Amino acid sequence: MEMLGKFISSVREKTPLVHHITNYVTVNDCANITLCIGASPVMAHAEEEVEEMVSMAGALVLNIGTLDSQQITRMFLAGKAAGKLGLPIILDPVGAGATSFRTKTAQRMIQELPISVLKGNAGEIGTLAGIQAEVRGVDSGGMSGDPVEITRILAERLGSTVVMSGVIDVVSDGNCIMQCENGHPFMGRLSGTGCMAASIIGACAAVFSDYLRSSAAGITAFGIAGERAAADAAGPGSFKYRLFDHMATVTGDDVNQYGRVRVL
Amino acid sequence: MEMLGKFISSVREKTPLVHHITNYVTVNDCANITLCIGASPVMAHAEEEVEEMVSMAGALVLNIGTLDSQQITRMFLAGKAAGKLGLPIILDPVGAGATSFRTKTAQRMIQELPISVLKGNAGEIGTLAGIQAEVRGVDSGGMSGDPVEITRILAERLGSTVVMSGVIDVVSDGNCIMQCENGHPFMGRLSGTGCMAASIIGACAAVFSDYLRSSAAGITAFGIAGERAAADAAGPGSFKYRLFDHMATVTGDDVNQYGRVRVL
Amino acid sequence: MEMLGKFISSVREKTPLVHHITNYVTVNDCANITLCIGASPVMAHAEEEVEEMVSMAGALVLNIGTLDSQQITRMFLAGKAAGKLGLPIILDPVGAGATSFRTKTAQRMIQELPISVLKGNAGEIGTLAGIQAEVRGVDSGGMSGDPVEITRILAERLGSTVVMSGVIDVVSDGNCIMQCENGHPFMGRLSGTGCMAASIIGACAAVFSDYLRSSAAGITAFGIAGERAAADAAGPGSFKYRLFDHMATVTGDDVNQYGRVRVL
Repeated sequence: MEMLGKFISSVREKTPLVHHITNYVTVNDCANITLCIGASPVMAHAEEEVEEMVSMAGALVLNIGTLDSQQITRMFLAGKAAGKLGLPIILDPVGAGATSFRTKTAQRMIQELPISVLKGNAGEIGTLAGIQAEVRGVDSGGMSGDPVEITRILAERLGSTVVMSGVIDVVSDGNCIMQCENGHPFMGRLSGTGCMAASIIGACAAVFSDYLRSSAAGITAFGIAGERAAADAAGPGSFKYRLFDHMATVTGDDVNQYGRVRVL
Repeated sequence: MEMLGKFISSVREKTPLVHHITNYVTVNDCANITLCIGASPVMAHAEEEVEEMVSMAGALVLNIGTLDSQQITRMFLAGKAAGKLGLPIILDPVGAGATSFRTKTAQRMIQELPISVLKGNAGEIGTLAGIQAEVRGVDSGGMSGDPVEITRILAERLGSTVVMSGVIDVVSDGNCIMQCENGHPFMGRLSGTGCMAASIIGACAAVFSDYLRSSAAGITAFGIAGERAAADAAGPGSFKYRLFDHMATVTGDDVNQYGRVRVL
Repeated sequence: MEMLGKFISSVREKTPLVHHITNYVTVNDCANITLCIGASPVMAHAEEEVEEMVSMAGALVLNIGTLDSQQITRMFLAGKAAGKLGLPIILDPVGAGATSFRTKTAQRMIQELPISVLKGNAGEIGTLAGIQAEVRGVDSGGMSGDPVEITRILAERLGSTVVMSGVIDVVSDGNCIMQCENGHPFMGRLSGTGCMAASIIGACAAVFSDYLRSSAAGITAFGIAGERAAADAAGPGSFKYRLFDHMATVTGDDVNQYGRVRVL
């Protein structure tokens, strides 16, 4: 069992700035969850400032949930700047596999940008791994093959950390594989939990360059918050506000004590 | 009394994909309410993918709440694609009557796109019916004339279902007229309830092509959720999270038992 | 002690329309808080309608939180129209001082538009006052110099009301100085409270052209709501929904009774 708590306590101490270029559906939730984990969110996309804003940040989160051509330009500009500075880039390829526009854009991003963490659902990660996978809108359909092996192989090929979210999240850097088992089914009934997970990973990656463990720590902390939020939640609305409440109080010790992370 | 419960239970069974091109003010609420009714939301607007995304969906919701010229192009692209596929299109002409830009765009949409359900407040529907009506910002002012007759005549003229929202919602396909009486004044004190109603109608229309009844079923289910959410709500903030909680649990049986729908 | 309650009760009586051109991160919160104070929000940005929408409104709120070049054009179009009509313009220069793009745009706005109320944090106001100030992302870092004097001098120079938000908010029209002490630390842990404050100021400025006092009244009412929301809040999620609940019930009498406003 890995002791991942220090990643969470470090975020709360260092309050890194997490720069997002993300979709307009869940952007407010991303901002607030970033504050809850103890980091500071900024959303900025203009060509005129995106590189300057990146230079201030500790991590860059790119999320293609409401992609268009103008946003691609901006994401590459920000991504190149982050690359030059050695900043971790977290990519959430929302809907890759649903349309060829998203698939191709996500493929270009993993090829041309130094992505540190690629986080998606089974359909998205399967698509980018070149496996037969199904994505309907922004939801994962089925995927053929073994999630653990697909995650590991894609991570190895990219030289990045890959996170395949699901009931059990799989995290791999191509070498080590971790399975993170915290979380609650309610998280799948709320729009934006995947996007929020990427924000949290960004906050953790900003303070530790061990992206495998910072990803596992982030999603474990988020999963613990989800479990606590689900207790007594009457439905998705009360679950949501409670998720923020609990994310704001999960400590490094909680992650060490309640985290269910298996190293394969 | 119509038995409309089957529309709701069908949505929960079939989980249709509801494609939205909508405003950036209430888009998160639209996504979450779509999940609560048991459907799956997707928001996508890029010219490069909008037709491909439509081809996956069960319904298309167009909402002009934060309209601009680029969005018009995208809405027509999506709308034409939906039309070819026989997909229901739900149009929410937010602010028609407030500015000539919105009025003209909404008029063009009902003329050039095969709208299945046009849903607006009295001012918006009155404006599109050519009646003296007042819209201030995105709120309905007064309207001269009989809401029931205006709704019916506009529906007849368009060959579509028209929903005029209000304390009592009027739904007509030009022939049959229904009055839906569920709901609560709190719904008017929260931004986005009108937009959410359109998402719910979209989910229902995706599973039954009887758009008159799927519209009435959707707004009735939403109204019941609103009534339940308002009980014990301390204000608009607690009403909002409770609205999602209750929308997630309203059943077809609830609609049959608690729905107050009068066929005129 | 100023009696500022009448500003709040007037908003609730007159329900002014508050036109926003704002960021896509917190726009939903701005819409809902505007409803809670008793006003009516509208968000519209298209070149084709922005002047017509302004002509219907009681105030214009400009917020550069997710600025880009297209939005600048739109803001100037709306701002010039508001100026011609004598409408109050509230400017929230989010992130001025963080990037030169935001700094320069905010400087151009205060020079070329008849801003009635400029509201920002210490870093933003300090930057615009030409003081050594630090802004990290959209958060205020430090600032050298006396907040009260900087606020007063900038207000005098601009001929506007300036609000520097902080633990104690400073409001000045260049002549009179007020310190508003209501509020709660929770407000700093939630994304968008600054943006919401600008919406509330907009609502108050729409009904009284005494912008010094309408600003002080608005942030005092908001601060009282924040204090009430924080009592028993388990975290930022429950604080947030309670903030809307309490904003909806703060009365003019509450402001007179519980407001802590000192005139220096």
